[in-house]
Amino acid sequence: MTDSSVTFHGWASTGSVQLQPWSYHPRALGPRDVEIQISHCGICASDIHTIKGEWGPLVQGTCIAGHEIIGTVVARGVDQAEKFAIGDRVGVGAIAESCQTCEYCTRGLDQQCAQRTFSFNDTYKVEQDEHRRGVTYGGFADGVRVPGDFVYKIPDAISSAEAAPLMCAGSTTYAPLAHHGAGPDKRVGIYGIGGLGHMALQWARAFQAKEVVAISTSDDKRDEAKQLGATRFVNSRDKDSMKQASGSMELLLVTSFGPDTDYNELLSLVANNGTCVLLAVPEKDISLSVSSLLGRHINLTAWLLGGRTAIRQMLDFAAKHNVRPWIETMPMSDANAAIKKAMDGFPRYRVVMHTGVVEEP
Amino acid sequence: MTDSSVTFHGWASTGSVQLQPWSYHPRALGPRDVEIQISHCGICASDIHTIKGEWGPLVQGTCIAGHEIIGTVVARGVDQAEKFAIGDRVGVGAIAESCQTCEYCTRGLDQQCAQRTFSFNDTYKVEQDEHRRGVTYGGFADGVRVPGDFVYKIPDAISSAEAAPLMCAGSTTYAPLAHHGAGPDKRVGIYGIGGLGHMALQWARAFQAKEVVAISTSDDKRDEAKQLGATRFVNSRDKDSMKQASGSMELLLVTSFGPDTDYNELLSLVANNGTCVLLAVPEKDISLSVSSLLGRHINLTAWLLGGRTAIRQMLDFAAKHNVRPWIETMPMSDANAAIKKAMDGFPRYRVVMHTGVVEEP
Repeated sequence: MTDSSVTFHGWASTGSVQLQPWSYHPRALGPRDVEIQISHCGICASDIHTIKGEWGPLVQGTCIAGHEIIGTVVARGVDQAEKFAIGDRVGVGAIAESCQTCEYCTRGLDQQCAQRTFSFNDTYKVEQDEHRRGVTYGGFADGVRVPGDFVYKIPDAISSAEAAPLMCAGSTTYAPLAHHGAGPDKRVGIYGIGGLGHMALQWARAFQAKEVVAISTSDDKRDEAKQLGATRFVNSRDKDSMKQASGSMELLLVTSFGPDTDYNELLSLVANNGTCVLLAVPEKDISLSVSSLLGRHINLTAWLLGGRTAIRQMLDFAAKHNVRPWIETMPMSDANAAIKKAMDGFPRYRVVMHTGVVEEP
Repeated sequence: MTDSSVTFHGWASTGSVQLQPWSYHPRALGPRDVEIQISHCGICASDIHTIKGEWGPLVQGTCIAGHEIIGTVVARGVDQAEKFAIGDRVGVGAIAESCQTCEYCTRGLDQQCAQRTFSFNDTYKVEQDEHRRGVTYGGFADGVRVPGDFVYKIPDAISSAEAAPLMCAGSTTYAPLAHHGAGPDKRVGIYGIGGLGHMALQWARAFQAKEVVAISTSDDKRDEAKQLGATRFVNSRDKDSMKQASGSMELLLVTSFGPDTDYNELLSLVANNGTCVLLAVPEKDISLSVSSLLGRHINLTAWLLGGRTAIRQMLDFAAKHNVRPWIETMPMSDANAAIKKAMDGFPRYRVVMHTGVVEEP
């Protein structure tokens, strides 16, 4: 059941990276829903994979991507009236719904819920509730309706433009570092200094990790990595530096990959009994020597997004410890230029689109 | 410095699987050493890989393998006089020495010590101590001298023949199951029902795991797996059974592999946030989809042997819970036949050689 009294104007893909202006009527505002007037939306690699069709066909042929959404509450269902006031500054991340009762949801792992619904290019799973059906459209638009349980208030200290990338890049790096205990007893490595990695360096510093090691293929990120919190920089193309760094990190977060990424070499960086967490998913299988894990009892794992609890903690933590993404803002009216910048322009480090409804800082 | 007053008679490889009778004088009995008259020695896959030269050239061109050693104390150095009496029934496993002071040794992870010395085909690392130098020769012989700190008393309840495989197959499966918390809150899968797997099933049962799932390529192990403790059997060649079992084990121990082992399929058996521990090392890199780990936060790790603490605990636990290897005994005088049986004869489940110095049960 759509609400023909409301129209959201967005930028949609029909399977190509070239976006077109496209409007839609959202579903009727359910008692649990919040309507947001969008001021900003970040661009994440997942948006680009999706709109290119690299992750399979689009759910309804037409997709409004965008899952680093910031805006203000302009309407809310009766169940959300106590929680949200009109005008509240809020954010939405990659997950728009989960059952909230299963073993995963109750452990703060909404991303593993069987009813987990992504905030774009997905379908709500709770068929018996008319307000929890239908396709999800994301934040490359001027508005969105989302279940209020997956809408987060933004601390005053954080600007809307800077808050946007926290919703995905921020929580996706915060959650595994928190879960795997980045802190004073750990030397933490961050491989790949981009949208995710530049956040991870800052979290690791704020967690007071014993060492924060930036590992990058490009030497020209050395200075910025240090500004972001790295106490050490390793150029991964320099075999000697890699060898010197071997076994030196109790926790290694791998935020990116290239066609020639050598996972055995990355695992060699991990200290005995340490953990390597993969955040980035190559299309092809990776090649791995069991010996890389065996003698030193290395743990290899991966992590998807952040759950509701992690997002709330992350926002408070970012406000308190002054962790902010480095961003380049562009008007959403130039969405295709912004996408191109995110894809090919080597932004430092995240492109955020603004709709112009609030003044840019 | 060798002790020409003593000669041990063993079965040696010079790089071929065909063993030859070969004698040697051991090093002088150091104050920390124990001399063992060997009654039994198990045959492990590592012995076979080593004597075939598959794990590199032999340390001194000639190798006496065997690291599941049981026998009686016939001499000991002054430092061991309080700990061991002449005639004590004792065992030696895969590790004959470590520094005992590093961070790994103090955590019971001797296998990660930089001075770790295998009990065969290796070289003692502490060069400044004349009694801690030289090549190690293993248990395919009538005697051995080993540092007493790596000699373990065998509980009375366990026969010498059955004790032998506990020293490696036993501790290598006990240690990771104990470390990763196999118990009433875990459904534990054991992939590969052989020398290691048949021990692992028994440990998992004794740890009172919620479920014990045997996964094997051969259906004819179904009944024996159940005798060994399996509450469920999955034929890994039956795709439907594998699919039905997906996501159903919090802990999966992989004790073997074949040329067609599909590691992504094995990981599909692991429950969300669960752990897969590899014990067996294929020569070639394995192929792995990061997606197998990502959405469900699966941990992939591996485990090497058991440390001193684990071996002591394992022996007590085996005595108390009546965990015993299933063995086929053969005389060490027929060492080559025993090796052939271990390699090609599908023993159920471990071949143990006896020297005849004690009566066979």
